[in-house]
Amino acid sequence: MVRRGRRSRDAPEAPRPTDQPPFRLHRRPFEPTRAVSDDELEAIHDASLAVLRNVGIDVLDPDARRLLVEAGAESDDQVRIRFDPDLVVDQVARAPSEFTLHARNPAHDVTVGGDHVVFSAVASPPNVSDEPGGRRQGNRVDFQNLVRLSHHLSAVQVHGGYPVEPADLHPSVRHLHATYDLLTLSDKVVNAYSLGAARNRDCLEMVRIARALDDATVDGEPSIFTIINTSSPLRLDGPMCQGIVEFARRNQVSVITPFTLAGAMAPVTIAGAVTQQNAEALAGIVLAQVARPGAPVVYGGFTSNVDMRSGSPAFGTPEFMQSALIGGQLARRYGLPYRSSNVNAANAIDAQAGYESVFSLWGAVMGGANLVFHGAGWMEGGLRASFEKMVLDADLLHMVAAFLQPIVVDDATLALDAIAEVGPGGHFFGAQHTQDRYRTAFHTPMISDWRNYESWLEAGSPTARDRAIELYPALLAEYEQPPFDDDALAELEDFVARRVAEGGVATDY
Amino acid sequence: MVRRGRRSRDAPEAPRPTDQPPFRLHRRPFEPTRAVSDDELEAIHDASLAVLRNVGIDVLDPDARRLLVEAGAESDDQVRIRFDPDLVVDQVARAPSEFTLHARNPAHDVTVGGDHVVFSAVASPPNVSDEPGGRRQGNRVDFQNLVRLSHHLSAVQVHGGYPVEPADLHPSVRHLHATYDLLTLSDKVVNAYSLGAARNRDCLEMVRIARALDDATVDGEPSIFTIINTSSPLRLDGPMCQGIVEFARRNQVSVITPFTLAGAMAPVTIAGAVTQQNAEALAGIVLAQVARPGAPVVYGGFTSNVDMRSGSPAFGTPEFMQSALIGGQLARRYGLPYRSSNVNAANAIDAQAGYESVFSLWGAVMGGANLVFHGAGWMEGGLRASFEKMVLDADLLHMVAAFLQPIVVDDATLALDAIAEVGPGGHFFGAQHTQDRYRTAFHTPMISDWRNYESWLEAGSPTARDRAIELYPALLAEYEQPPFDDDALAELEDFVARRVAEGGVATDY
Repeated sequence: MVRRGRRSRDAPEAPRPTDQPPFRLHRRPFEPTRAVSDDELEAIHDASLAVLRNVGIDVLDPDARRLLVEAGAESDDQVRIRFDPDLVVDQVARAPSEFTLHARNPAHDVTVGGDHVVFSAVASPPNVSDEPGGRRQGNRVDFQNLVRLSHHLSAVQVHGGYPVEPADLHPSVRHLHATYDLLTLSDKVVNAYSLGAARNRDCLEMVRIARALDDATVDGEPSIFTIINTSSPLRLDGPMCQGIVEFARRNQVSVITPFTLAGAMAPVTIAGAVTQQNAEALAGIVLAQVARPGAPVVYGGFTSNVDMRSGSPAFGTPEFMQSALIGGQLARRYGLPYRSSNVNAANAIDAQAGYESVFSLWGAVMGGANLVFHGAGWMEGGLRASFEKMVLDADLLHMVAAFLQPIVVDDATLALDAIAEVGPGGHFFGAQHTQDRYRTAFHTPMISDWRNYESWLEAGSPTARDRAIELYPALLAEYEQPPFDDDALAELEDFVARRVAEGGVATDY
Repeated sequence: MVRRGRRSRDAPEAPRPTDQPPFRLHRRPFEPTRAVSDDELEAIHDASLAVLRNVGIDVLDPDARRLLVEAGAESDDQVRIRFDPDLVVDQVARAPSEFTLHARNPAHDVTVGGDHVVFSAVASPPNVSDEPGGRRQGNRVDFQNLVRLSHHLSAVQVHGGYPVEPADLHPSVRHLHATYDLLTLSDKVVNAYSLGAARNRDCLEMVRIARALDDATVDGEPSIFTIINTSSPLRLDGPMCQGIVEFARRNQVSVITPFTLAGAMAPVTIAGAVTQQNAEALAGIVLAQVARPGAPVVYGGFTSNVDMRSGSPAFGTPEFMQSALIGGQLARRYGLPYRSSNVNAANAIDAQAGYESVFSLWGAVMGGANLVFHGAGWMEGGLRASFEKMVLDADLLHMVAAFLQPIVVDDATLALDAIAEVGPGGHFFGAQHTQDRYRTAFHTPMISDWRNYESWLEAGSPTARDRAIELYPALLAEYEQPPFDDDALAELEDFVARRVAEGGVATDY
């Protein structure tokens, strides 16, 4: 960051377009919204327990099945596992309601649960775009730049995973190089993909090295998380089971998120889709608890609907919002942290990208989400990460964060003296009450253009997309790599070199 | 509307891009969000009563001052009126908490108050735009087309006023021609501008004629409303006072909306700005109640902030949202219907227009707004009405309405049979449960483009703006003028002709 010249105390520096509020933690100052009554919530709860008991879940990992059967679940000697309702309720009750996720830099630790609200960057798109580069397959260079941008954007509090898939890294070693990049280009909390237990182990070991801790300390401090997507309907595949078990045993975090698209992988009715979501989420959470009682988990909701004309998934829809509210009610019923998302299906950075994202955030935040996943950069229903959308979303997240700031009501803010001083027909621009506060009174967005029409026209009629195209390279240019302890870095590099030399995790392709 | 050919019962007609859900009324199925505690709310209430008692309001109309003094308010023998707290509380308590606004077509009556949510069209911009016509001063042709579009859009439930100012109509007769157009091109509820008592009287008389009722019946049925903006800080100007009094006496509706921009016409703090908003709103409501106890009023909140760098008003900001929540808490404290708005400061139909509008709707709807003003078509902080934005906003309003639909939780929607039938690893597309419901299960927006990237690219990469540009003429072409009783029309035309011949309401310009 360039140091600017000295200024007198009374001449504040002019704000720059890339100015951001500082990194900070957010808490929801109001009650979440309840979309269904307590009775209706119990009906959904009961229905999902009935699904787990009568239909069951296909659990595609033998070790996971063994753990579940040992804990009292029923196996049909194939892959199907059925759960007694008491087993589910008892096991789910063991999960903590709140925990801290530790970052390499303690200033970037986040609390998950309660009334805390944490925003992540986009995760997992196969494609990436910027202007004028256009849309292209994910690759390590863009991956690294998205990590840098995520690190520099104060609105992004944790990495969600790979902000784009670095497809030019072979899958056998991708997790090693990508996690190395995440840990060295940033010091915010990272995610590991559950693609077989060995990868989870490698990633956790890298985080341990980066944090310069011993195993026992890492096992006492959740330091990495993994997103577990069920293969809806009603299946937990092998790698996901292994991820849950591996991380639970080490006291690391699984975010259990069924991908229940109503009308496709789940019933076409919201109540039915959320019932199935709940059954699948509870199954994953039970597996975590039987692997280690008290293992930190997050209840994930991702129910949305498909366009019934085309089968395309839709996001930021009214049905997504309703599901997000019910998901929060269910998570709180179980005393679990709740994950929702900032999602949209837009192909362009247009009004749709804006309104679908804010509708998603509306559902997520009012639903009481503790972890708002894909917070910045997601487009095309998750098929593309966009540099410009990441900047625009950072602005949206800051606006939501400002909305979540508690409103101070005291003598100074009630401003009776200022109102009396200004009196009828006056104005407040010059009042001391205003002068004392105006620099910090209101949130100042990076993107929003509030100029009048004539000034805006004269400036070339820039749209929000144009502003994001201009801002993203400027923000990326401001990025500074966070420091890394020399010994830890050497150890990390040795680990990666050794595991790469060993071939990483063998694949058959 | 073009009749389409016969189809067999099993081959439903393909949806058209201009298909809209039917006109219907909406209710909020959940509790509004509380941004401040009960104690903090009382502190704001007490502070605004202190403003009314100690500072007072400049009331610029002698008749209004006389009414207030007769009811117990104190005058300083100039224009300042001070209000005893008991007077305020007692008078405000007389206002109804809910009432029906009657349209010329009873199918378009709306209920205001309680958990009802009503959306209006944009009102009052001086400019208008469409593509490729560009931005131009308001005029009667565009006014009429915006009225037609507002009538045809089922999301628009009431007219908010003039969707654009028809500046080519002389102000002395503008209200006559404009109200004639509103009443004959549409049959939804209309608004009158309070620009002197004579205009309010003319407009009410025109509504009476259009509804073919006698005076006494109209006086029993609120049939028109007026927006009352205070001249913040702390002033009620002459025409606004006359509008309140004139409409209260005839049992018509005043929506009392202070224009309290924090940092400009109100304190820079949210608590202070809302305190001033509350003082001003209560003063106007008291005036309505002393003119006629029980007169229908709506508590209006419009507090937003200015950009402290430029002084430009900003909308859809976090501060707007916070104020919208507190405004709703205050309105409910007084048992009054609540008005908020769908606003933005965007100069283009871009992501900013999308996200600021949805942030506004978030604040308004979660704040418990009963009347969401400027629901469709507003841009540039109210300086421009846009045909395309009206279509886009109609889509947003339908999405909010779909979100507000109660979620049905019963055996059929919980879908246990369908979940069992499909089972692990199956899909729901073909399930009977899906087939029975898919046509109406989800809201289908007009604008949102959910195609995959390749199809979208092939279609020419249309943005939401492009879709709105294409849709608006198609929607306008579908417009059908609603029927009007011949006798009533003749009487209405006679009235307008007579009043125009009389010179309308004299102006000095």
